[in-house]
Amino acid sequence: MEIELGRAKRARRAFAFDDIAVVPSRRTRNPEDVSTAWSIDAYQFDIPVLGAPMDSVTSPETAIALGKLGGLGVLDLEGLWTRYDDPASLLAEIAELPCGESIARMQELYSEPIKPELVRERLAQIRSAGVTVAGSLTPQRTQELYETVVAAGVDVFVIRGTTVSAEHVSSVSEPLNLKKFIYDLDVPVIVGGAATYTAALHLMRTGAAGVLVGFGGGAASTTRATLGIHVPMATAVADVAGARRDYLDESGGRYVHVIADGGVGTSGDIVKALAMGADAVMLGVALARATDAPGRGFHWGPEAHHATLPRGKRIRVDQPASLEEILYGPASVADGTTNLIGALRKSMATTGYSDLKEFQRIEVVVSPYATD
Amino acid sequence: MEIELGRAKRARRAFAFDDIAVVPSRRTRNPEDVSTAWSIDAYQFDIPVLGAPMDSVTSPETAIALGKLGGLGVLDLEGLWTRYDDPASLLAEIAELPCGESIARMQELYSEPIKPELVRERLAQIRSAGVTVAGSLTPQRTQELYETVVAAGVDVFVIRGTTVSAEHVSSVSEPLNLKKFIYDLDVPVIVGGAATYTAALHLMRTGAAGVLVGFGGGAASTTRATLGIHVPMATAVADVAGARRDYLDESGGRYVHVIADGGVGTSGDIVKALAMGADAVMLGVALARATDAPGRGFHWGPEAHHATLPRGKRIRVDQPASLEEILYGPASVADGTTNLIGALRKSMATTGYSDLKEFQRIEVVVSPYATD
Amino acid sequence: MEIELGRAKRARRAFAFDDIAVVPSRRTRNPEDVSTAWSIDAYQFDIPVLGAPMDSVTSPETAIALGKLGGLGVLDLEGLWTRYDDPASLLAEIAELPCGESIARMQELYSEPIKPELVRERLAQIRSAGVTVAGSLTPQRTQELYETVVAAGVDVFVIRGTTVSAEHVSSVSEPLNLKKFIYDLDVPVIVGGAATYTAALHLMRTGAAGVLVGFGGGAASTTRATLGIHVPMATAVADVAGARRDYLDESGGRYVHVIADGGVGTSGDIVKALAMGADAVMLGVALARATDAPGRGFHWGPEAHHATLPRGKRIRVDQPASLEEILYGPASVADGTTNLIGALRKSMATTGYSDLKEFQRIEVVVSPYATD
Amino acid sequence: MEIELGRAKRARRAFAFDDIAVVPSRRTRNPEDVSTAWSIDAYQFDIPVLGAPMDSVTSPETAIALGKLGGLGVLDLEGLWTRYDDPASLLAEIAELPCGESIARMQELYSEPIKPELVRERLAQIRSAGVTVAGSLTPQRTQELYETVVAAGVDVFVIRGTTVSAEHVSSVSEPLNLKKFIYDLDVPVIVGGAATYTAALHLMRTGAAGVLVGFGGGAASTTRATLGIHVPMATAVADVAGARRDYLDESGGRYVHVIADGGVGTSGDIVKALAMGADAVMLGVALARATDAPGRGFHWGPEAHHATLPRGKRIRVDQPASLEEILYGPASVADGTTNLIGALRKSMATTGYSDLKEFQRIEVVVSPYATD
Repeated sequence: MEIELGRAKRARRAFAFDDIAVVPSRRTRNPEDVSTAWSIDAYQFDIPVLGAPMDSVTSPETAIALGKLGGLGVLDLEGLWTRYDDPASLLAEIAELPCGESIARMQELYSEPIKPELVRERLAQIRSAGVTVAGSLTPQRTQELYETVVAAGVDVFVIRGTTVSAEHVSSVSEPLNLKKFIYDLDVPVIVGGAATYTAALHLMRTGAAGVLVGFGGGAASTTRATLGIHVPMATAVADVAGARRDYLDESGGRYVHVIADGGVGTSGDIVKALAMGADAVMLGVALARATDAPGRGFHWGPEAHHATLPRGKRIRVDQPASLEEILYGPASVADGTTNLIGALRKSMATTGYSDLKEFQRIEVVVSPYATD
Repeated sequence: MEIELGRAKRARRAFAFDDIAVVPSRRTRNPEDVSTAWSIDAYQFDIPVLGAPMDSVTSPETAIALGKLGGLGVLDLEGLWTRYDDPASLLAEIAELPCGESIARMQELYSEPIKPELVRERLAQIRSAGVTVAGSLTPQRTQELYETVVAAGVDVFVIRGTTVSAEHVSSVSEPLNLKKFIYDLDVPVIVGGAATYTAALHLMRTGAAGVLVGFGGGAASTTRATLGIHVPMATAVADVAGARRDYLDESGGRYVHVIADGGVGTSGDIVKALAMGADAVMLGVALARATDAPGRGFHWGPEAHHATLPRGKRIRVDQPASLEEILYGPASVADGTTNLIGALRKSMATTGYSDLKEFQRIEVVVSPYATD
Repeated sequence: MEIELGRAKRARRAFAFDDIAVVPSRRTRNPEDVSTAWSIDAYQFDIPVLGAPMDSVTSPETAIALGKLGGLGVLDLEGLWTRYDDPASLLAEIAELPCGESIARMQELYSEPIKPELVRERLAQIRSAGVTVAGSLTPQRTQELYETVVAAGVDVFVIRGTTVSAEHVSSVSEPLNLKKFIYDLDVPVIVGGAATYTAALHLMRTGAAGVLVGFGGGAASTTRATLGIHVPMATAVADVAGARRDYLDESGGRYVHVIADGGVGTSGDIVKALAMGADAVMLGVALARATDAPGRGFHWGPEAHHATLPRGKRIRVDQPASLEEILYGPASVADGTTNLIGALRKSMATTGYSDLKEFQRIEVVVSPYATD
Repeated sequence: MEIELGRAKRARRAFAFDDIAVVPSRRTRNPEDVSTAWSIDAYQFDIPVLGAPMDSVTSPETAIALGKLGGLGVLDLEGLWTRYDDPASLLAEIAELPCGESIARMQELYSEPIKPELVRERLAQIRSAGVTVAGSLTPQRTQELYETVVAAGVDVFVIRGTTVSAEHVSSVSEPLNLKKFIYDLDVPVIVGGAATYTAALHLMRTGAAGVLVGFGGGAASTTRATLGIHVPMATAVADVAGARRDYLDESGGRYVHVIADGGVGTSGDIVKALAMGADAVMLGVALARATDAPGRGFHWGPEAHHATLPRGKRIRVDQPASLEEILYGPASVADGTTNLIGALRKSMATTGYSDLKEFQRIEVVVSPYATD
């Protein structure tokens, strides 16, 4: 599939979720016979869903709620919750900002320093609810804050940036040595985004338990316009699933989880991410649509408030249902935003699959959207 | 045409009706010399048209009307007509519902139990008009209701679901054994939707007289957004036509009819479905546009009122003409919604073909819509 | 480039003018050094432009005007001008009709019988102005009216229908034997539309001087929605140009002109039609945009008023300039609708070509529209 | 990648910037470690940015400002600044013109003769500010005006037209002999647009220091509609980069700079142009968006006011920031229009590259826009 763009350049065709669809097999099943269980390291989940570490998606409360509903909420430890004692009024203010001013005001709000004591407090709150605890740092802050985080007690440590590589080169400071860091840490680490086979393979070799596939924040991201970078998700997930397979062989049996992070906005997208080989999905906008989401009808990622180069937007989202209804229904709309897990079960049943690992083998067709 | 989506996944390019068009040959004919006759089992029809078992399309009255006009109306035996004595007021109510509330109210209306006596009554009404009688059940209800249906006297028995497979797997109940069921039954069975070569071939081996090709309800369906499943119809019909050819050989001469069900909205789509190898088409939205259609300017499928996971919409449709004019003209609009059969004849004549079986060999080009 | 649509069907990818563009060569020229001359049979023209036989484009007056400007106007001898003594008021009425009613009223207007004396009168009017005289009939009417037409004195006889084949099959009447007809006739015949290599080759073998490439009326046509037929023009012109080349060899030197008829709406489209191998273009909507065009700001083709199966629309068009300015400028808009010939000269000069025959060899790229 | 368009024509698939994106490698860097330095001949620049010779972009003042900010402003020596003593009021008038009248009025304004003394004056003004001086002529005017220009003292001489070839053929006047002209001149010459490998190779052989890649003015151009010519920029840059490589070998080491000119509207486009092999970019609309740009919220190219065949538009542009902020931020919008150089650095850092020459090797994917 190599394409000649011109005399001096070749490229590969890459595919987005909108470019593909899954097709039924010759077998069908009952939705009740389908399992959506997922586990990573020692942690078991009913559903392959992580809540994205974005302030519009995951607060301590929604991390707890998502945990009780069978998923894993990941708190952004560099968000408003670790910068302010009580971010509720700020979240309300963000939801009130006129369109043209939102980025500038968010740049201000997020310039407040992170407070280690708030990191401890927020994680303790989640832990006390009895659910699996997960928090996220950027690679830039990991060195500075990880001891606080570990001491506060996370079960799953997430290192998440637009792009995280195993080989960061810096002339100004000693970069984070991911391999040593992960080796020294007691808790499983999920790290990303990675967008290519090679980048993911190198991340797997650092000892990570899971790799986030993606680049930036999907619906709310403008990296293609700003940076010229774009990672069509269907191809990226399939490439990283290829790295998982090769690393499994190379390592003599270490299975590193592939987590699609970006571009997963509807139940149809969840189906496609898993079909391309993902073990789980990290949801942003899909959960920001909950009536009880902290974003109050808005959604944004960390790129949106970068001090000098914002690469994302605050977008308005519909709020059709509560978090529980978004995951488990019942739905009274039919657009893939509600009853995500019911839709996943129905899709797996209709196409004849009974568990997520099997479902990764489902047949896929290329068919650009908006036809038929 | 296999495409590498990424390291761990390959896919086939699939085509929708909008992606293709037929082209003239070197010969032309008079429209009067063209035959659109179709027969299945012992039943003869002037036109290769089935009315879809959807409450917005087929009532006992429109089944009779379509029969008299040369086609075959299929009544949904799990629709409003077998749940309520007089559904007219409910159909009127559905047509009055505000957009945001239509799914929720339909979920209520369709939770009323099915009455076997109404099944008998509706079918008897159609039979008494002297036209071919056809009724449709889902696989889930077939076991429960088929004896009523057969006793009531259907000429053609339709088993229709989003996806119907010859190998349904269930841990909770004994699934319908299609092969035994069809073998035991005296009436010809049309079964589907099937979307792939293999699924269709297995359905053909059950003894079905016809296979419905498609998945969900075309214009009113949102399965791509909700389930991630999409069956581009041009490819699906051509694949199932391939299964027909191979099964004809394997069975020593049994010809199973291929019926395109979904995505056939205009006369142009009918032409393309037949060109891809269909023997007939099952029309939904195309007939819901009749001024005398039961949907009263709206159209919806059974997926739209699923209790917990609706995967369709109630859509508003234009009503340019009566059922008779929709089929036979004259037309005073030029958008492929009126005089469907006149357009089919003209298309066959212009491209030089004289009957439907020949027309399946017509040359086709790939040319995405909205250009030229 | 054969594509598998599904198991039982293959297709070719076909291209529209919008899918392609021409690219400069290594040479440039002065626009003044470029010739746009075209000749067919004994007739010489400054520009490779025929006015389409459509009532919104060609009246006796505009046929004369176009002739004086260097092109060839073709009068529709089955249009309003041969049905009514004074069609001016009817053209004005059509331009006033509300959108929803235009087709129905045009169906009425065009049901008036054709008057042979008006055929004579209109052609005599054009002849008396001293320009080349061309009139058009459909194949269905040719038998009935050609003697009138020839007696009235046409220089170029055009037989034009949606699709015209050399092998029309009819059980009701003896079809026109094109080969015999053309052989017996003294005047050169241009015949079409033809859309494929084979159909065109057969038309060339009838002795035609030129072949119209296309199917239906471009901008105003809805044949894809109604008949499922679509002829992407770039591919169609290149295929028929291939037939011209092969027939030149087979016939020992007869050069049959290839005239693109349909989809040629802007100066850019003219450039592309010639680049694909056309010798000339037949313009519809491009000339209907003239302030002095008979359509008075509207455009429609004969398909639009078919009695039972209209397959076209009356479309509203901008009127940026007079016929002379549309052809030769100066332009004060920059959208390809004005100064068509100036643009053609500039395009040929910029890409380094000096005459139309050479220009057919220009390099072309595939690049779907709406990008860059 | 050759495609058969039809029997008599083949074409190559060509790609626009919107069709492609760059993807991260396995390495990441700090933005501070990235160099965006560019040099041509003896001139060094901090950033690979030329201001396009268009009146909406480059005035003497903005040429100076851009020079001080590290780039190279190129003054159009056939624009308003060399036709009028004080064009400020005319620029204000253009910004006030109603849409329908802008082309006609610009045709008038630009018919004023060029004054050699104004050429001298404008260049002297730029020189006196201590920045690199560059001015642009069309090939048609070069003979007439170059001595004035050289005497006035330019550091870099730009010859720019829609298409400039090394072999212009004219029957009316002796065309500019580029090779002799450049050989005789003391200053480095940048020449273009060129759109193909062959055209660029021939321009390189004339001794040019740089070649402009493109055809017409990108955002403000309508050459595809008017002339049928279109140069998808990704392919064009890669083709000309191929010519640079081959000419480097053929000439024994002369490195001719490749400058993308057209279609570079956002920071993402800059990234892609460099990724395809460009050494620098010439920016039009991207700089016309500055609050201090001479276009005052409008943008147009020389094609827009062609006397008889305008092939461009005056387009309205947002003005989100000053020239300095457009280049270096901080940005408070996230659409690729502000902090162009910050975005370039971030993109290079994120994908692991440290200088522009290396960055030309970055991996690229084909992924049509508007998906994901």
